[in-house]
Amino acid sequence: MNRNVVFTFFLFCFVTICRGSGTDIALDAKATLLHRIDSLNLLIYTCLLTLTVLTIWVFKHRRVSWLHETGLAVIYGLIVGAIIRYAGSTNHITHINVNPEPGTTYNLSVPPDMLRFHFPASLPITPGDSPIANKTYAYSFRGEIVNVEQNEIDLKATFDPEIFFNIILPPIIFHAGYCLKRKYFFRNLGAILTFAMVGTALSALVIGALMYGCVQLMPASLASSFTFLDTLYFGALISPTDPLTVLAIFSQLKVDVNLYAMIFGESVLNDAVALVLSGAIQNYETRYSHDGGFEISGFLGAIGDFIGIFSLSLLVGALMGCLTALISKFTHVRDWPLLESALFVLMSYAAFLIAEVCELTGVVAVLFCGICQAHYTYNNLSSDSRNRTKQLFELLNFLAENFIFTYIGVSMFTFPKHHFDPWFIIAGFITSMLGRAVNIYPLSFLLNLGRKPPIPVNFQHMLFFSGLRGAMSFALAIRNTVSEARQAMLTTTSMIVIATVVLQGGAATHALDYLRIPTGQGSNEESEALPYRDVRSDTPRGGGDAGGGQKARLARVWGALDSRLLKPLLTHARPPLTETLPAFMRPVARLLTTTHQYTQGDNTLRRTDSDSDLCIDDPQIPSSIDPQQLWPGLVDTRISVEGITGSNI
Amino acid sequence: MNRNVVFTFFLFCFVTICRGSGTDIALDAKATLLHRIDSLNLLIYTCLLTLTVLTIWVFKHRRVSWLHETGLAVIYGLIVGAIIRYAGSTNHITHINVNPEPGTTYNLSVPPDMLRFHFPASLPITPGDSPIANKTYAYSFRGEIVNVEQNEIDLKATFDPEIFFNIILPPIIFHAGYCLKRKYFFRNLGAILTFAMVGTALSALVIGALMYGCVQLMPASLASSFTFLDTLYFGALISPTDPLTVLAIFSQLKVDVNLYAMIFGESVLNDAVALVLSGAIQNYETRYSHDGGFEISGFLGAIGDFIGIFSLSLLVGALMGCLTALISKFTHVRDWPLLESALFVLMSYAAFLIAEVCELTGVVAVLFCGICQAHYTYNNLSSDSRNRTKQLFELLNFLAENFIFTYIGVSMFTFPKHHFDPWFIIAGFITSMLGRAVNIYPLSFLLNLGRKPPIPVNFQHMLFFSGLRGAMSFALAIRNTVSEARQAMLTTTSMIVIATVVLQGGAATHALDYLRIPTGQGSNEESEALPYRDVRSDTPRGGGDAGGGQKARLARVWGALDSRLLKPLLTHARPPLTETLPAFMRPVARLLTTTHQYTQGDNTLRRTDSDSDLCIDDPQIPSSIDPQQLWPGLVDTRISVEGITGSNI
Repeated sequence: MNRNVVFTFFLFCFVTICRGSGTDIALDAKATLLHRIDSLNLLIYTCLLTLTVLTIWVFKHRRVSWLHETGLAVIYGLIVGAIIRYAGSTNHITHINVNPEPGTTYNLSVPPDMLRFHFPASLPITPGDSPIANKTYAYSFRGEIVNVEQNEIDLKATFDPEIFFNIILPPIIFHAGYCLKRKYFFRNLGAILTFAMVGTALSALVIGALMYGCVQLMPASLASSFTFLDTLYFGALISPTDPLTVLAIFSQLKVDVNLYAMIFGESVLNDAVALVLSGAIQNYETRYSHDGGFEISGFLGAIGDFIGIFSLSLLVGALMGCLTALISKFTHVRDWPLLESALFVLMSYAAFLIAEVCELTGVVAVLFCGICQAHYTYNNLSSDSRNRTKQLFELLNFLAENFIFTYIGVSMFTFPKHHFDPWFIIAGFITSMLGRAVNIYPLSFLLNLGRKPPIPVNFQHMLFFSGLRGAMSFALAIRNTVSEARQAMLTTTSMIVIATVVLQGGAATHALDYLRIPTGQGSNEESEALPYRDVRSDTPRGGGDAGGGQKARLARVWGALDSRLLKPLLTHARPPLTETLPAFMRPVARLLTTTHQYTQGDNTLRRTDSDSDLCIDDPQIPSSIDPQQLWPGLVDTRISVEGITGSNI
Repeated sequence: MNRNVVFTFFLFCFVTICRGSGTDIALDAKATLLHRIDSLNLLIYTCLLTLTVLTIWVFKHRRVSWLHETGLAVIYGLIVGAIIRYAGSTNHITHINVNPEPGTTYNLSVPPDMLRFHFPASLPITPGDSPIANKTYAYSFRGEIVNVEQNEIDLKATFDPEIFFNIILPPIIFHAGYCLKRKYFFRNLGAILTFAMVGTALSALVIGALMYGCVQLMPASLASSFTFLDTLYFGALISPTDPLTVLAIFSQLKVDVNLYAMIFGESVLNDAVALVLSGAIQNYETRYSHDGGFEISGFLGAIGDFIGIFSLSLLVGALMGCLTALISKFTHVRDWPLLESALFVLMSYAAFLIAEVCELTGVVAVLFCGICQAHYTYNNLSSDSRNRTKQLFELLNFLAENFIFTYIGVSMFTFPKHHFDPWFIIAGFITSMLGRAVNIYPLSFLLNLGRKPPIPVNFQHMLFFSGLRGAMSFALAIRNTVSEARQAMLTTTSMIVIATVVLQGGAATHALDYLRIPTGQGSNEESEALPYRDVRSDTPRGGGDAGGGQKARLARVWGALDSRLLKPLLTHARPPLTETLPAFMRPVARLLTTTHQYTQGDNTLRRTDSDSDLCIDDPQIPSSIDPQQLWPGLVDTRISVEGITGSNI
């Protein structure tokens, strides 16, 4: 790439010199150059992703399972990042120090949005170049310069960190929600919520405290730059897990579905928890504490922020999901699958945007929107739209995920704000491992007190082992790199992500062997889908039996509400509202029930209520794709066969 | 939206005042505010698109055909744009005039990339506000300020115009290429190329000359601001057509397929021609001409630019398409449809980026990449990937197209650089109509001299009538709005687009009636797909018979090359290269032929060589979707039936 940049630069100079000396032309050429550098950056990533796709095909073809595509993306990223870094000269940014014009008045406490720079005729200019006198240029606000010595903001293959939160993460998170194996998710809800909510907070606290201790033992220059809030923020950002690699191997080897559901469900939710938690810590820092010390009112305020933002974001996402379900139920938009798919995508994206506009967390909204879309809207969609939305988000998720891992690799070398501190990095590795242990073992012990089939010890080890770090940690770390402390955090996070994804991911098969976790069980999707679908009654009450005593009651209440009110209201599922609502609500109920709901038989119910069909664990393996999803034309025969089997049992 | 902005602003002030007076917090709040305004802008467009989708569903449901979704998107955009414009106060941008620090030296002919603004302690500040003394802020280059009086750059619901070229247009153009009805396209290739290449250039020239004449008759202030190159640029940007609405009605009413192919093919190609043409005119302006006058060397240089850039872009796109075909042929990546689809998308996007990096036209590259992908790669893809890529680009195209038309509506009111000049607008309407007439009637006359079934007069009127203007014209017009002349062009273009899309689009059904163009013909896709597939031999020689004498020879040469070299090389089509290449090339040919190609029967050939299946004219109508595409499980039976029919004939 760098050669190209250098070449481009010379080309640009050549063009500038040859074709007239007017500033306009030079400006045009400069704009063109910038555009070409942008395109080149994108092209590098596109080529890297293409390379990853091709290599992973070779690996799959040769049945190599010790390297997942994300690991490969990171490795390719590292190689290309190193080449970019060491292959050539750098692209210096020209700058000038300026002062306000004499006599300017300004009365706001924030710096102005724009500077107007009038290029004077009197600047000393080397002879031969034409002056750019008497033109006015606009400059827009970029940020505060903390380190005035740092001369260079690199243009090399880096993007604005906000891109991750606004473009890359939403499809990944939505896909996770849309693809959640909801049956097993709800069956293990107690464990998942405990690990994701309590566990992540606990892990963040433990890591934060331990890191603060470690930092105090280090050289004074480093110790002074970290406050307890900084290390706590580090704890929050390093706590979410991203066990993509492990899950891919699980579904390849057909590992126990409950273990799968626990690991996947926890990783989906702890992303959301960690994001809101880090936001609350940052708010605490900026709002309540002026010296970084502890204040009880500020602490309570931060907890309030956390709960409020999390639950409001959840509400926004869930409401948008339900609204989409209502629209798709009561209109016949499903007759035009393209319109229906477009509506689905637009409404889901609107959930993200609404949450962002209301200063909530868009990612959390989009996660719960995805869950609602899968639970309700999916059942109303035409088969074409089901297929299309699933495949669309699968593809977006694949591209976004591999992009972010490639970027982690490349930015390790090219991002200008890395700060390598060996002690901090070692401490980060050790504490993040300890934090994961504190999350899993004590909470498993507590859960096993109330859980009927307890979590076996080897499952606990596997849960501990699945604590890979990934996209969310990196996105949180790169968001803010103003201080040296934050830069050290970014470097440590990048290294932890790379190490866990490549090494831990590669060792997952051996870990399964070593821990004697049974693989190749009959409990894979295909052979299991039918009996489970038969066992499920209209109310998913059966799902509660795995949790503790209170959990089961909660699940039962939710299940009753879901099957008696929400499902009949939002989908075409039976029994209709006219049967489930009390008599005085009958007129309203009649209004909200479609004729389709009255007239359909039990077979159709089974067909539309197809929770267990939705999830594709490892989309790359064709055998795991439910043929019913791909060839809806075949559904009718299969359904009727099932219906018979079900009634026989 | 504006109330929200005002509310947000007050909230922001409140937060600023309440929560400590530190500049850091104010800066954070300011960044949050900007992010929220961005989100709000996106949310407005998302809601508008959702509304458009829902309304268009109602229209389709009630069989209203006088308003297409793009027309509706424009109208909704206009309404919301007017509300945003007149509903509230504006968001002023704060600015300060600055001078370089004393003693600065600077020796480049372009302005610096960045300014460092050291906020001095000595600025007169109104009492009550805290000063921001002794902090340094970075400001990045935005552009030249031409009109120093223009105080306000609006944040209201506008985007960087480059977004259209880099994000919105590529999927639209790729989809057009991927979806081209290639059989009819090649059959009418002569007419399409004549209208698109010669016609567009002619139309641009005529409009440019007429507009220059009109401008000279206008008040002197306007006349002086337009050079002939300016009006020629206007001619180039207003020449491409975008007859979405008309085509949707055509496929609804099953109008003659050749007329459809001519209008669609021309509109696809003239977008590419106009884009390169306007680029060449702009280059001429900046490179060769210093006074806007005519120079013969410059003129030849511009023509050279045009031909060079067009053919090189075409080459880049076609090569990337062929490369994808080769990869998909010689690897078994089709066993993993997700990887295959990702590869397909990445390679197609890479074509765009490579062209942009090489200072060619990415949009042209992506168009021809799409045509090659459809002609070769599509045949190698797994059925899952065919489905997925087609549906993905269909959805992207739908969203991008409606977004751009919504934006045209909204920006009519909110874009700050409109310049309403009634005379220029009236002249623009008249000349653009004349330009279209000059494109169609004389060229049809010339074509009819050599064409065996001549183009009937009512078809010519329909071709003239289908000269709606759309996305490409708008994107070209909004790209550059520095001068008053360019701003007047933008306004005129916007108004022409809106008027043609809404009025001409709405009148299309009546025009068909009035011109007595037969509708509801047997030549719709479904009843015609089978006979045509039987008629087609391995070599598409039959496609040449519609063109003139030389055209037919050209088509025959191309057809022979395609069927003997390219198709066997790039796809699994028969006859294999071992049969078509001369004997001395046998070893190479054997290397490039897959076992699949040797072993497959004639049935499989018919199946993979499914050009005529690809295009969905109006994707919203479920009946027009070929069931073979959606339920590949049913293909085998259908194919064998066809095979029998074919051999019977």
